[in-house]
Amino acid sequence: MDELIMLPGPTAIPPEGLEAQSRQMIGHREEAFSKLLVRVTENLKKVFFTENDLLIFPASGTGGLEIAIVNSFSPGDKVLSVTNGVFGQRFREIAKAYGVNVIELDFPWGEPCDYDKIENFLGKYQDIKAVLFTHNETSTGVQNDLQRMGEIIKEHDALLIVDAVSSLGGLPLYTDKWGVDMVITSSQKALMTPPGLALVAVSPQAWRQIEQSTLPKFYWDLLKAKKYYEESRQTPYTPAVSLLYALDQALKLILKEGIENVFKRHRVLTRALRRGMEKLGIKPFVPWEIASYTVSSFYQPEGIDFKDFKDHLVKKYKLHFAGGQGRLKDKIFRIGHMGYVNQEMILKTVESIGSTLEDFNFKADKVSALAETEKIISEELSRNEL
Amino acid sequence: MDELIMLPGPTAIPPEGLEAQSRQMIGHREEAFSKLLVRVTENLKKVFFTENDLLIFPASGTGGLEIAIVNSFSPGDKVLSVTNGVFGQRFREIAKAYGVNVIELDFPWGEPCDYDKIENFLGKYQDIKAVLFTHNETSTGVQNDLQRMGEIIKEHDALLIVDAVSSLGGLPLYTDKWGVDMVITSSQKALMTPPGLALVAVSPQAWRQIEQSTLPKFYWDLLKAKKYYEESRQTPYTPAVSLLYALDQALKLILKEGIENVFKRHRVLTRALRRGMEKLGIKPFVPWEIASYTVSSFYQPEGIDFKDFKDHLVKKYKLHFAGGQGRLKDKIFRIGHMGYVNQEMILKTVESIGSTLEDFNFKADKVSALAETEKIISEELSRNEL
Repeated sequence: MDELIMLPGPTAIPPEGLEAQSRQMIGHREEAFSKLLVRVTENLKKVFFTENDLLIFPASGTGGLEIAIVNSFSPGDKVLSVTNGVFGQRFREIAKAYGVNVIELDFPWGEPCDYDKIENFLGKYQDIKAVLFTHNETSTGVQNDLQRMGEIIKEHDALLIVDAVSSLGGLPLYTDKWGVDMVITSSQKALMTPPGLALVAVSPQAWRQIEQSTLPKFYWDLLKAKKYYEESRQTPYTPAVSLLYALDQALKLILKEGIENVFKRHRVLTRALRRGMEKLGIKPFVPWEIASYTVSSFYQPEGIDFKDFKDHLVKKYKLHFAGGQGRLKDKIFRIGHMGYVNQEMILKTVESIGSTLEDFNFKADKVSALAETEKIISEELSRNEL
Repeated sequence: MDELIMLPGPTAIPPEGLEAQSRQMIGHREEAFSKLLVRVTENLKKVFFTENDLLIFPASGTGGLEIAIVNSFSPGDKVLSVTNGVFGQRFREIAKAYGVNVIELDFPWGEPCDYDKIENFLGKYQDIKAVLFTHNETSTGVQNDLQRMGEIIKEHDALLIVDAVSSLGGLPLYTDKWGVDMVITSSQKALMTPPGLALVAVSPQAWRQIEQSTLPKFYWDLLKAKKYYEESRQTPYTPAVSLLYALDQALKLILKEGIENVFKRHRVLTRALRRGMEKLGIKPFVPWEIASYTVSSFYQPEGIDFKDFKDHLVKKYKLHFAGGQGRLKDKIFRIGHMGYVNQEMILKTVESIGSTLEDFNFKADKVSALAETEKIISEELSRNEL
């Protein structure tokens, strides 16, 4: 690979996925397509750790969040929106745009949610229909505690609807075991497929609420998508065939590696990257305890104009990563490491950033940063436990 | 190409488009993406014959129709829905799903619209906000008279909103000259790109109405998409990068051939296919005067079970085409010939259908059918007029 794609999405596509997209079209009302759709759906269920229904729409992740909102609610329905970053806010904005009665519970960006407080809110508002929750806050690199959230929701008659766009396939997410009613993700993150597919898993309890929903919908209609899948193994409208080719390949790679091994690889590479960066004098924005394993956030280096730093890395070292978003725009930067990511890419990232610091006449102990990074990876990845 | 893809969509992708999709991802907030987006947008405007704004969403064509509805109207707005097939009906259903007050004007499937009647309706209901019109009815192979519709609408203070999913890039469609306010199409038809992109052109008059719209929207928000494009040459949410790679290549091919030559190729191949089929004893479903140049419909051959006929063509001759839809399911079949289609593919289609008739022990004058098909193509395509 010529360019080093360490974006928080779209992420790098493995050669198998790129090649799959050079296959010619097939008809979406033909048997060959149904076989593809069933295989992708069944393999996705394995990666989602679910036996719930799983439906696929041509759309980006934000479209997937909209699917959850317009199918689950009626105007005036009360939902609790928990946020600690840009994407939690976006999920909430979609609900508000559709006239859902949103109760807002905000935690500081870069900090964990206060789960006792969430529990209190749920106790206070007995008529809450659902909690909107962000598993991995891409904007801050914080991994929220979805398992804990699942335990809390079990005591309440509300759905747990989760934005898993930058978590699913990278962070442990056990849909059924943790009691998540709707899991929404998209193709272009840890699933290492180009953008354009929204994926939604729906529990039986969620279906019961969906059947009551009166918000207007047509393209996003989950019940119609379910009916088509059940009756004919097809989609109501033309599916994104080439993206399904790529996703099919990506899922095969994930299942071949073993999903638990994939989780471990993400966790170990994250630790190694963070330690290497620390050795270079670049400070992580959030502590390890709440750190995402798919996107790492760091404080922008002091004394260097961030735009110059970023442009230099892109132009000289072909390293592609992201700045901060929203109120963190001038404070942090973010390195994506999900899906098609390996030791070599992490080392090259640390090396490129070290070299850039040197190019800007800052001291950076590149040698020990790389040694530390490599040591963590080789020690921890070779260990026989997950 | 091994299989012969003569579907009414998704259509065959040219080698350049397939290859383009094997390119690695780029960041959608990076300069390289903006360049791609601008080039695709500007080239699309040429193919749309428009100087209006043109916006691209990850979605299928039905999503594109929904974009037009949720952005243009408020609940209770009166619109005139003109239909003569499945897709006109679908466009109407979307409007109804969103509480738009739909006035229905239906013409028989396979027959032209009665434009005097449309004009009468527009005269009768002075408060109509828009006409929903289907340029090419994929379900019947009828080309509706969009130019005439444009002339009618000029006398009225209503928008002309057009489903051009299976027409744009195949049939003449001069957006600005004909006064079409919104043109909606998708990637997987005459634009010879895999499915997953919805494209919408919006006139200044349409923008004025869009600014008044109160229907709920978030993902489909056209004003937000326009703002992002104007301010940063980006999209609000992650774009379908690999599909844009393919569309970029397809547009280059179209512009290289010359869009008027593309129209001519579609028209001539349609005439040749129809004549060849007639020679085989297969009757066109609609007369030449209203025939689509992108999809041709024929009566199912008498005396053969249609499922057997279709399965035989797929299995033995690798010819992929479509049956009828809705009330025409047991009556017609449809051959798509838009986008990446040429003389060889049309000849092979006629030959395969002729051979299949023979395989089923029917008389079919394959030799003269092929001669007639070839004659029309070589005579008419070589002629120096458009």
